[in-house]
Amino acid sequence: MYNFRNDYSLGAHKKILEKIIEFNSEVNTGYGLDMHCMRAASLIEKELDARADIHFISGGTQTNLLAAAAFLKPYQSIIAVSTAHILDNETGAIEATGHKIIEIPGEDGKISPQSIENIMRSYGSESKTQPKMVYITNATELGTIYSIKELEEISRVCKKYGLYLYMDGARLAHAIMSEESDLRLSDIARLTDAFFIGGTKNGLIMGEALVILNEELKPGFRYIYKQRGAMLAKGFFMGIQFEALFEDGLFYELGKYANDMAKKLSVGLREQNIEFYARPVTNQIFLNLSDELIERLSRDFLFETMILPNGEKVSRLVTSWATSEKDIDAILEFFRNENK
Amino acid sequence: MYNFRNDYSLGAHKKILEKIIEFNSEVNTGYGLDMHCMRAASLIEKELDARADIHFISGGTQTNLLAAAAFLKPYQSIIAVSTAHILDNETGAIEATGHKIIEIPGEDGKISPQSIENIMRSYGSESKTQPKMVYITNATELGTIYSIKELEEISRVCKKYGLYLYMDGARLAHAIMSEESDLRLSDIARLTDAFFIGGTKNGLIMGEALVILNEELKPGFRYIYKQRGAMLAKGFFMGIQFEALFEDGLFYELGKYANDMAKKLSVGLREQNIEFYARPVTNQIFLNLSDELIERLSRDFLFETMILPNGEKVSRLVTSWATSEKDIDAILEFFRNENK
Amino acid sequence: MYNFRNDYSLGAHKKILEKIIEFNSEVNTGYGLDMHCMRAASLIEKELDARADIHFISGGTQTNLLAAAAFLKPYQSIIAVSTAHILDNETGAIEATGHKIIEIPGEDGKISPQSIENIMRSYGSESKTQPKMVYITNATELGTIYSIKELEEISRVCKKYGLYLYMDGARLAHAIMSEESDLRLSDIARLTDAFFIGGTKNGLIMGEALVILNEELKPGFRYIYKQRGAMLAKGFFMGIQFEALFEDGLFYELGKYANDMAKKLSVGLREQNIEFYARPVTNQIFLNLSDELIERLSRDFLFETMILPNGEKVSRLVTSWATSEKDIDAILEFFRNENK
Amino acid sequence: MYNFRNDYSLGAHKKILEKIIEFNSEVNTGYGLDMHCMRAASLIEKELDARADIHFISGGTQTNLLAAAAFLKPYQSIIAVSTAHILDNETGAIEATGHKIIEIPGEDGKISPQSIENIMRSYGSESKTQPKMVYITNATELGTIYSIKELEEISRVCKKYGLYLYMDGARLAHAIMSEESDLRLSDIARLTDAFFIGGTKNGLIMGEALVILNEELKPGFRYIYKQRGAMLAKGFFMGIQFEALFEDGLFYELGKYANDMAKKLSVGLREQNIEFYARPVTNQIFLNLSDELIERLSRDFLFETMILPNGEKVSRLVTSWATSEKDIDAILEFFRNENK
Repeated sequence: MYNFRNDYSLGAHKKILEKIIEFNSEVNTGYGLDMHCMRAASLIEKELDARADIHFISGGTQTNLLAAAAFLKPYQSIIAVSTAHILDNETGAIEATGHKIIEIPGEDGKISPQSIENIMRSYGSESKTQPKMVYITNATELGTIYSIKELEEISRVCKKYGLYLYMDGARLAHAIMSEESDLRLSDIARLTDAFFIGGTKNGLIMGEALVILNEELKPGFRYIYKQRGAMLAKGFFMGIQFEALFEDGLFYELGKYANDMAKKLSVGLREQNIEFYARPVTNQIFLNLSDELIERLSRDFLFETMILPNGEKVSRLVTSWATSEKDIDAILEFFRNENK
Repeated sequence: MYNFRNDYSLGAHKKILEKIIEFNSEVNTGYGLDMHCMRAASLIEKELDARADIHFISGGTQTNLLAAAAFLKPYQSIIAVSTAHILDNETGAIEATGHKIIEIPGEDGKISPQSIENIMRSYGSESKTQPKMVYITNATELGTIYSIKELEEISRVCKKYGLYLYMDGARLAHAIMSEESDLRLSDIARLTDAFFIGGTKNGLIMGEALVILNEELKPGFRYIYKQRGAMLAKGFFMGIQFEALFEDGLFYELGKYANDMAKKLSVGLREQNIEFYARPVTNQIFLNLSDELIERLSRDFLFETMILPNGEKVSRLVTSWATSEKDIDAILEFFRNENK
Repeated sequence: MYNFRNDYSLGAHKKILEKIIEFNSEVNTGYGLDMHCMRAASLIEKELDARADIHFISGGTQTNLLAAAAFLKPYQSIIAVSTAHILDNETGAIEATGHKIIEIPGEDGKISPQSIENIMRSYGSESKTQPKMVYITNATELGTIYSIKELEEISRVCKKYGLYLYMDGARLAHAIMSEESDLRLSDIARLTDAFFIGGTKNGLIMGEALVILNEELKPGFRYIYKQRGAMLAKGFFMGIQFEALFEDGLFYELGKYANDMAKKLSVGLREQNIEFYARPVTNQIFLNLSDELIERLSRDFLFETMILPNGEKVSRLVTSWATSEKDIDAILEFFRNENK
Repeated sequence: MYNFRNDYSLGAHKKILEKIIEFNSEVNTGYGLDMHCMRAASLIEKELDARADIHFISGGTQTNLLAAAAFLKPYQSIIAVSTAHILDNETGAIEATGHKIIEIPGEDGKISPQSIENIMRSYGSESKTQPKMVYITNATELGTIYSIKELEEISRVCKKYGLYLYMDGARLAHAIMSEESDLRLSDIARLTDAFFIGGTKNGLIMGEALVILNEELKPGFRYIYKQRGAMLAKGFFMGIQFEALFEDGLFYELGKYANDMAKKLSVGLREQNIEFYARPVTNQIFLNLSDELIERLSRDFLFETMILPNGEKVSRLVTSWATSEKDIDAILEFFRNENK
């Protein structure tokens, strides 16, 4: 079977694994207070061109729920588009911290400044929650990305209304390394209050780096980190991996590689006149395939198919640092044979 | 000023007040375990033609949040239409208990069996919450009502999927006593798992009666009742009021009176060609009025105007047990003068 | 039966009831934003000699849980003595808001500055909660009271460690009006960050007045108030009662009356050589009675007997604004007959 | 520096690391539904001689909070002794799930059946929480252990009162492999409702195996697992490690090795007349050392010293799978030199 199911099916990229092996016998301080976590944070700060509090967390759902628990007062809510991962793919993790998510329509998985304005104008009463954070993902759940200009406009409306801007970067490497992206980590650091850099989907065994930029959000975070079970005894395990990811550009390299594989795949699919559900610019490719095609494709290829509320089916092919040219060739070969 | 703002602007109906005075010097057991609460519960059970656990609670938001806290496991969610009171008019009270509300479109403020089916078909994964309760209001937030047939169909789809059916009856008297209603309390008892009978908007100083019918929802409720601060030391104060409301039909009488006043008002408004935003069948009348008309009307009349997300304005006139014929005459006189 | 069970067995004192009747037909704004709540708050502020945010809440458990939810960050905890009402008499209401209570030993129901110091010295690590509020009751659960000097010392250690000082005043009138008390409301306002003035146990049908003095605790409270179901549609019902309680000193008068009855009772009991479990200075009298005496006393008198963890039994006699001289004469007569 | 600070300062035991390397390039299903997790669970079940639901979780605090969130109703509480890890070393993680911990005195870190009885007799009112789970640790926070007989007696009183018995086994290997222990995993499976097998402190990079035995606690757990951020995308990473731990007895071997090192150390210390704070039977040794000795020892040896509430200092030396004979020789040499 060829794997296009997701970008977290294997262990770690070999450079990551080598570092884990290298430091396996070293005595380290516990709870994320070790030298590897510090050095990893310092390497990331260089990319940000900003001072940040950086915490390493085992997964995206946990990172998002820690942010909600730590950043918001009990009556404050989060604005997010209907495709947002936190809305319907994290088992109500945000609501379990006591906070409401205000769902608004998105466009290609993205939020618009105007839709935030609309919400803020209709809120304000004490019988409603107080919107306080805007949640966006980059790359989005549909594989699309934000430009500097878009992020600047969103940031401006957030500042206008005193909203925190938070970016879920589970696939941030893929967003930044998209051919169509003009965003760098330093832009994100300049324009958001907090965001996270995904490692799990970019070559690590596990780990996301939560980057807190807004000074008022920094104090007390480690209490929440411990209280919600996210502080690992051997926190250095994540520090070591992020160190490896950022000490010589591996973060960017792996993101670019996955995108390149996706590009090769989408170019090939376009030649076969396959219909795209969303324009492919990162490592996720969404397709409208017939039931028969889905059935035949799934004989040799691992991938997921979602059923939308309106009954429509959308199939997703994901590439990663672990995808080989051979995988791409095989799947394109499949489609070519179908078209004969 | 004439009051059409809401149905909870005055103290209690005089029969209620008389009972409060009558029993003021009586020694009673605390915490809702007194004879008045028991007798009130027993009077209500007669109307239900069913055995129920009945708890008296000071307001609707508290009743709804107690139900969520008591009836659901931490990963279970509630299905409700977008106009539902719990969604955006209770400051995130449900989410503060840890539970997600799944928002679906309604029709005239009502839920359809099909929309529940749709949700249940797209849920089921552990990465989503488990829908477990359907929340409906009767009369709805738009003043509309459910028929026996509609409730039966909703109940059937709930049973099919193991969903609890819960009815918010803040204005239940008005729903039941609508000329267009064929529902009785006994039908609601037969078709729902729990519901509440609103007192605050029907002549009481305060009080809603939560009626729990499903045996699996009954145990442990009084612990939640105490834990969330809803158990009053002088719980008999609510028992006395509900006793008065149900011992000789005052509940129905006041609901009908409010509806009659609303009917007189809507008939008069129709004669003046005023446009209705929703068809008036209970004690809330929703109108599309021009900005100028709103401005002039508000000089002598108390009422509310909402701004919808699309910018549209909707004005609401509410009648109650305390509305007088004189109030109706005055406001109809205003509209007649406008039309001259 | 003569009632010594508690101070919340009857309706309202007649002056309170008269006010409720007087304003029953008045149109009022909802949700505690009416003229009665404002005037009541203003009357209380005069007694405080301080600017405060004052919110009227239906009971003590709800007031305490609102304070915890509103004042603390998720990782902050409350220090309280082992007899504290919040520890084991509110069904875990505080923990249900997510906050830990750190239990420390008390003396006669009171906290000592030294015990707070001890806690603060052993805390500080991120693997422990951050103590942020000290909870005291006055009068305490054992009927004892704090002096100005004691409260000043507690306040000083709280300020030293950045702890909020919060007083549960369910029986504050009885504390202040104790012959042995030198505290006034203005002292409490000067020395605490927030406290509440109990109405339910001092002649109201229901109502506690939460007084927030510390500026940093004031914002956002009404959101929590609504979210936890404490904001009543007819909030004016509590405003009217507190207006009556404070417009001509009824608050003090009823507290003093209950204390006077308790004094007469304790003097009489001492003459009969009854053993006191705690020194009686307010309206609660704790006695060590034999099982036989408890049994005989309970034939004509309502009262409660607690069993301590060590198996010891303690009986409690409570007087109130509703206790009559006749009640006292009757119970003293009983004890005199026993001693013959 | 020689490391006696804790048992989680290094990476993984080499056999564990080898397995991680071996399976690094294998495609696996996500979210803990892979073959490694299944096989690890099956290997553990063999040791239990029982059917269990087994979930792999990244750390002890998270495991404990998941158990509280999943097993208890909102008004139910946990009984634990005052030294319990959940009480004051997990930043209020249990309370953050809404549940109260009832603190009772322990003896050498252990709970007694009688103390559970005492609690159950004084509870029962709706104004108190409902105790529903007893939390014990084995080995305890003081390094002591439970015998079969002790566990049977605790289990009996739990069954009598309908309490779940839950064992925190962060150092379970060390408990079981103590020379003084007669307990096996199958006894624990027979006598508890749920427990966890610690991996983080016994040679894994991270991972605890939560074992759910009571049928009524099994359903729905994976929803909570996802909701609280504990479900890892690459869950197979923990499965692989537990497979390695249980496929040829490494779990027992490493626990025994750590105990053996501790034994050698304690024998040597006893010869030097060092005073023990608790009798050493597992891999934690608690000592009463003078301030001067603590200062000198800390020049070459890593270890922790706690200050008890009464001001007393207790130093802790921990051995592990990674402790070498050389480490033991060095520290004993230190003490011998001190005694000269």
